[in-house]
Amino acid sequence: MKRPTIADIAQRAGVSKGAVSYALNGQPGVSESTRRRVLAIAKEIGWNPNGAARALSGAPSDTIGMVLRRPARILGVEPFFMELISGVEAELSARSYALTLQVVADQAAEIEVYRRWWGERRVDGVLVCDLRVDDPRITALADLSLPTVVVGSLGEVAGLVSVWSDDAAPVVEAVEYLNALGHRHIARVGGLPDLRHTAVRTEAFEEVCRRLNVEPALTIPTDYTGEDGARATRRLLSSPRRPTAILYDNDVMAVAGLAVAHEMGFSVPGDVSLVAWDDSVLCQLVHPPLTAMSRDIPAYGGHAARRLLDVIAGGSVASLQDVAAHLIPRGSTAAPAPRA
Amino acid sequence: MKRPTIADIAQRAGVSKGAVSYALNGQPGVSESTRRRVLAIAKEIGWNPNGAARALSGAPSDTIGMVLRRPARILGVEPFFMELISGVEAELSARSYALTLQVVADQAAEIEVYRRWWGERRVDGVLVCDLRVDDPRITALADLSLPTVVVGSLGEVAGLVSVWSDDAAPVVEAVEYLNALGHRHIARVGGLPDLRHTAVRTEAFEEVCRRLNVEPALTIPTDYTGEDGARATRRLLSSPRRPTAILYDNDVMAVAGLAVAHEMGFSVPGDVSLVAWDDSVLCQLVHPPLTAMSRDIPAYGGHAARRLLDVIAGGSVASLQDVAAHLIPRGSTAAPAPRA
Repeated sequence: MKRPTIADIAQRAGVSKGAVSYALNGQPGVSESTRRRVLAIAKEIGWNPNGAARALSGAPSDTIGMVLRRPARILGVEPFFMELISGVEAELSARSYALTLQVVADQAAEIEVYRRWWGERRVDGVLVCDLRVDDPRITALADLSLPTVVVGSLGEVAGLVSVWSDDAAPVVEAVEYLNALGHRHIARVGGLPDLRHTAVRTEAFEEVCRRLNVEPALTIPTDYTGEDGARATRRLLSSPRRPTAILYDNDVMAVAGLAVAHEMGFSVPGDVSLVAWDDSVLCQLVHPPLTAMSRDIPAYGGHAARRLLDVIAGGSVASLQDVAAHLIPRGSTAAPAPRA
Repeated sequence: MKRPTIADIAQRAGVSKGAVSYALNGQPGVSESTRRRVLAIAKEIGWNPNGAARALSGAPSDTIGMVLRRPARILGVEPFFMELISGVEAELSARSYALTLQVVADQAAEIEVYRRWWGERRVDGVLVCDLRVDDPRITALADLSLPTVVVGSLGEVAGLVSVWSDDAAPVVEAVEYLNALGHRHIARVGGLPDLRHTAVRTEAFEEVCRRLNVEPALTIPTDYTGEDGARATRRLLSSPRRPTAILYDNDVMAVAGLAVAHEMGFSVPGDVSLVAWDDSVLCQLVHPPLTAMSRDIPAYGGHAARRLLDVIAGGSVASLQDVAAHLIPRGSTAAPAPRA
């Protein structure tokens, strides 16, 4: 089983490779009937005249790339990535672009993939996610001159276009809302602490809690999995001064937290109010449905893909601040019940 | 912003393009110091000596492809695809392979993508999902001689390796279990009717219901979305002879069906038992947790990826029948309550 070559066409057509080359390139030196036969055979066996040679001459690959440094399994459980990718794909498919994904174990491997993709013309540009507090990928990508759009909450990044949204404002909105309902003990189940957007949210949470005299302003860090979210919730609800409201940094953990509350015999929202971040079908389907920080993640992915295509096209492209997530109150939040 | 070329290296090094070529290819004709300088510059600007030229010579792309003909948004809502892709990625990342995804609108576009990918050496092979009852892709892929593994429930496909599991046995297992609990009115909310595995399940459902004298053996077809699943559930629970148990063809629809039962004031499992197909975190997190037809979908994706890499390597590869999904009873199924 091998890829069709000019030699295969020559053999089937019963002519020389040189004759095939003339025929395919529209050069003189072969009869019109041979040319037609060669073209028919080339089409039949799937030989593409705009083949790999195009890449050598610097033609676009019509492909963009994304390297993911989370465990491959996270793709199957966290809706965020798949919603982002679905939005990217919706934009790309309209332009017949493909998306290449590669999962890597560490940062060095990630940078090596960018270098190889760009050197081998496998992609025309990349989307970069999950920016770290201190992130060497930024310099590496700038050095490569590989068209890049950063997806994340960081505002401007020197030399790179980014699509981002404010991560502080939604935290403030949620805490102010819970405070207005009467909550004075609010805790947070946070994401991976070395991600930039987690750091922004943690700082905003501590600041607004301080301002409103809300305690304990405790953030328990997690790895974003439902298991870790359940563990953190169990710890919070087992403490002698349990919070009356909990904010989660994603939806999977909030749904897991709801199950833990039920398992421990607490009613939601009677005993504890829960707020998810990143609204998804998960939040709307559980009972009670979860109050969530909602935003259109597929649209966010679409913005990023469009901007990357603009960067690839060589235009002058500005970073985009997308709308921030906003609170959608549902059944999981209410005024705290008076303590017995 | 352009990709680094030999001309760029030549300019920076202050030598001719020919000299750069000699230096990069280890040929005589340049001094050792020039060779070292050229290699250092090539590395610095990200020029890859194993570049696009490798593709021209038929070198592998270390990439496999998947074309999806569902709406891009489905990726963000149905866990099945993402769990499958996460299993594929876990296998590929261990071998530094990438996965290229392209979403297309119709079958003709899908076949055209295979032709282009193979002709341009963009992929070394493809995984093909969602086989139709009558599927022209099979012939097209065989004609292209593009290494292919079919993922789906169909047993042997002429000329192609497939990874599949039995879709009939789990239906029989679920209906026999519900029948043993005392259910005599069982309905099914099915998937897209023109998919092969839907057809297999529908036939098995009708057959086992006939054998056990279970009615109405009605299957309502859907597009797999939660919205369609909710609509079908509302219709079933509003009928004068409402079923006491409902089987769903995926998890999103079963979770939506649970929400509809609650919204209509029916208790689960008191008034109606629900069974999901494809167990996911969704099924385990709702209340009551859903009885489900469970299988390890990431492992299924891993099997498919491994078999495709074997096909690409040119070995003789047999199709694999993976273990069938099996019933995991949870809180959403019980004996039917006596009707008032």
